[in-house]
Amino acid sequence: MNNISTDMRPIGVFDSGVGGLTVLKSLMRSMPGENFLYLGDTARVPYGTKSADTIRSYSAGLASVLLHHDVKMIIIACNTASAHATDLVRDIASPVPVIGMIEPAAAAAIAASKRRNILVMGTQSTIRSACYDRAIHAINPSIAVRGVACQMLVALAEEGADPTWLSGDIAKSIITRYLAPYFTDPAMAPDTIILGCTHFPLLREAIASVVGPDVTLIENGGTIAAIVEPMMGQAVNAAPTISFMVTDAAERFAPLARTFLGRSIPLDAITHIDLNDYAAYSAVQNNEKEKTLCSI
Amino acid sequence: MNNISTDMRPIGVFDSGVGGLTVLKSLMRSMPGENFLYLGDTARVPYGTKSADTIRSYSAGLASVLLHHDVKMIIIACNTASAHATDLVRDIASPVPVIGMIEPAAAAAIAASKRRNILVMGTQSTIRSACYDRAIHAINPSIAVRGVACQMLVALAEEGADPTWLSGDIAKSIITRYLAPYFTDPAMAPDTIILGCTHFPLLREAIASVVGPDVTLIENGGTIAAIVEPMMGQAVNAAPTISFMVTDAAERFAPLARTFLGRSIPLDAITHIDLNDYAAYSAVQNNEKEKTLCSI
Repeated sequence: MNNISTDMRPIGVFDSGVGGLTVLKSLMRSMPGENFLYLGDTARVPYGTKSADTIRSYSAGLASVLLHHDVKMIIIACNTASAHATDLVRDIASPVPVIGMIEPAAAAAIAASKRRNILVMGTQSTIRSACYDRAIHAINPSIAVRGVACQMLVALAEEGADPTWLSGDIAKSIITRYLAPYFTDPAMAPDTIILGCTHFPLLREAIASVVGPDVTLIENGGTIAAIVEPMMGQAVNAAPTISFMVTDAAERFAPLARTFLGRSIPLDAITHIDLNDYAAYSAVQNNEKEKTLCSI
Repeated sequence: MNNISTDMRPIGVFDSGVGGLTVLKSLMRSMPGENFLYLGDTARVPYGTKSADTIRSYSAGLASVLLHHDVKMIIIACNTASAHATDLVRDIASPVPVIGMIEPAAAAAIAASKRRNILVMGTQSTIRSACYDRAIHAINPSIAVRGVACQMLVALAEEGADPTWLSGDIAKSIITRYLAPYFTDPAMAPDTIILGCTHFPLLREAIASVVGPDVTLIENGGTIAAIVEPMMGQAVNAAPTISFMVTDAAERFAPLARTFLGRSIPLDAITHIDLNDYAAYSAVQNNEKEKTLCSI
């Protein structure tokens, strides 16, 4: 893959909802000259409690929407979708490159882990897929990998418009309940934890306070940005645009977006789309569909 | 509406996912001779964080599936769908009767409240709709009604396969955080709480332990069964069948169903359906679609 920075098309980012905005935040910081188009499937969120078949079907639909909007790359900013649908999305998008969350975070965790003991926190569906176990063992089979499904942390992060949910005793109690069993035996305790859900960076401080300073926390945003940035080189857009598409109402996306992206998004930068429209357009090969999106 | 007990068709029950099984449990107990067909939209659950338009669209689709399977009544076993889509579902289903969650629970709460101060616990979308406020004030405008969105309790109930989540300190801390502000002024404290989400009966004991024995808790299941049972009269089915349809994988429904229904459901009683198939069938007026469902 060569430098595609002279390509003015946006980088497409899709997620089941708002969590992927933590990844977009890292991408925007690393590549301030790139255009981004973010698609959140807020009408069907979350993916983390659903089956592999359903997640694959949904992910394929989202990728098609981004391709319809002529993106130069697709980033699957959702661990659950990455776990189940990266290959499928690559088939659909080829030759447009597709980057998932799993391998970059796995590689970063291997690099960080001194005692070769890694814990993966994720949604039920991500943990059940054992995607991180496979990705880590493909590089180093001798590393111990365990996974813990932390579904309550997704709900907790989404209450984060009131930040006391993210840092108070309730958050710490829930995190302790999920993680304590992995720290009972010091010889088996992980020294590296992959925050394998894009909601969890909002809880980073609370998680760090529970596990202590000797455990390294790996986030998707930073590891993805480190992979993508060298592919882009010098950005060429003098006035980059960031646009958002959502499948549920824009009005419901904006307040959560502030929590996850760390900045507010004006309503006119958020376009509500109906996936059925895209299916219909796709079916009739109609390339005339309105592609104009507002942006921030 | 007359006695329809001699009608062997099933009573249709739909919900965004598994929560409505707490309502089905009450219905089955009250009407052990009726056939039931339960439809859970597990591929798009939850509804409680989504917009009114999306919830109306989803609810209309689910009602159409039940009508396709020739139900004699539709029970909307989801407060959020009841709040936003009861009128729409009635339009679609007419002359098949449609029963929502809101009015029966509102009437029961009014009957129970001595100090005319009612608190509604619900999803974000139910509380935002103010549906209970309207239903209560339509009967008695002098009753004080407040609502509290308790989104974390939905996630907590869904962790309930491990019942210690439902009764331990974490559950009580979360419930206290949501409810404490309504009890700081004894003169304004509610004496009746509507559990306005079908997930919340799983947390009934924890809620009761937080608010104390002087507060009456109103559940949807009991209030709905009390409305429907007199409409049915003497049941005529010697061997009633209970069938389940879900939009996500049956394998993911079965374990949660045990928690919410209080009994296990064999996989062959759960049929996975693709809503797109029904949309297509509906479009071509094809009435030949296979209607055979397995049951418990």
